[in-house]
Amino acid sequence: MRFPRAINNLIEAFSQLPSVGPKTAERYAFHLLKSSPEKLENLAKSLSELKANITVCSHCLAISETNPCSICADTQRKNGILCIVENIQDLISLEATKQYPGQYFILGGLINTIENIKPEDLNIQKLLQKIKTGEYKEIILALNFTLEGETTSLYLNKILTAYNLKVTRLAKGLPAGSDLEYADETTLATALKYRTETK
Amino acid sequence: MRFPRAINNLIEAFSQLPSVGPKTAERYAFHLLKSSPEKLENLAKSLSELKANITVCSHCLAISETNPCSICADTQRKNGILCIVENIQDLISLEATKQYPGQYFILGGLINTIENIKPEDLNIQKLLQKIKTGEYKEIILALNFTLEGETTSLYLNKILTAYNLKVTRLAKGLPAGSDLEYADETTLATALKYRTETK
Repeated sequence: MRFPRAINNLIEAFSQLPSVGPKTAERYAFHLLKSSPEKLENLAKSLSELKANITVCSHCLAISETNPCSICADTQRKNGILCIVENIQDLISLEATKQYPGQYFILGGLINTIENIKPEDLNIQKLLQKIKTGEYKEIILALNFTLEGETTSLYLNKILTAYNLKVTRLAKGLPAGSDLEYADETTLATALKYRTETK
Repeated sequence: MRFPRAINNLIEAFSQLPSVGPKTAERYAFHLLKSSPEKLENLAKSLSELKANITVCSHCLAISETNPCSICADTQRKNGILCIVENIQDLISLEATKQYPGQYFILGGLINTIENIKPEDLNIQKLLQKIKTGEYKEIILALNFTLEGETTSLYLNKILTAYNLKVTRLAKGLPAGSDLEYADETTLATALKYRTETK
């Protein structure tokens, strides 16, 4: 005796998702078995239509409903600042702050020697084309502060010195709501080094 | 700027799954965005067809592709033993041992005062109908050893005394591969009490 084929198929399909094992997939399947046919059809429809209404903005390479995307189409954001992010998720996180008035560029990954992701696998050629227009005066490297992010930032910084540009990075320091006692030494040392004056 | 609508829809639909929050749902959605259209369509199809080919076995109340299910239809398993389990998942786990030769009955839940699940919410009437046929000589209560499982076992045991039946429960003790050092006191005490003679 096994689960009926329809359930087994769904369990197998769910098992393909990142960090979902057979037990979690089983939980999802049995949860859906109990839910209404409308909810089930809604999920199936969302999946079928996932790629239908999505395009890539040819300016910033972000996935979007329109080309150019709403940010690149906004003339008020053409202020000479370009923020380089790894992916659309990071773009959305930065947009959520409502503090950044410029444009974005999606790098499409980070240099990673272990996973064999080389600079030529990223959208660097497209980035240089954009920079060569002379439209930008500042480039913000908003990449993760991980080994891969640091490597990529160093690499981009080196390439960008050939252009007459201000290249900046996000500030390092202690996160909001953090406890000094539990901060790692590197973060604490950086926070001390870049301490700001109270006004 | 938000995610395109198609992605948002999928994130919302995934967020309905048990213990899936918006961040996990986002990970699933972006994973699927990168996967092939075939895989996507496969998952959508599995969902649409989930309830199409499934029925409930009228004998044991298990979800099944056929009615009666393959176990209830097997005349060799009509040996007078009935094993009461909470749900189909537990039935599959017991079947995986390949040690149980009898039939099953799905109780459909456990008595739970916190979640207000009362005996009348379970398939107890149907169970008594089955028992009244006089077909069974032993009833195995294969319920979880949790508060809810113990309560339900006690309740069923009390009801079943009215019938001339042998009522048994699964053995309590130390699980395979366990370490005495980390066993809880109740388990260890039970294991000591029900120690078996080496032959």
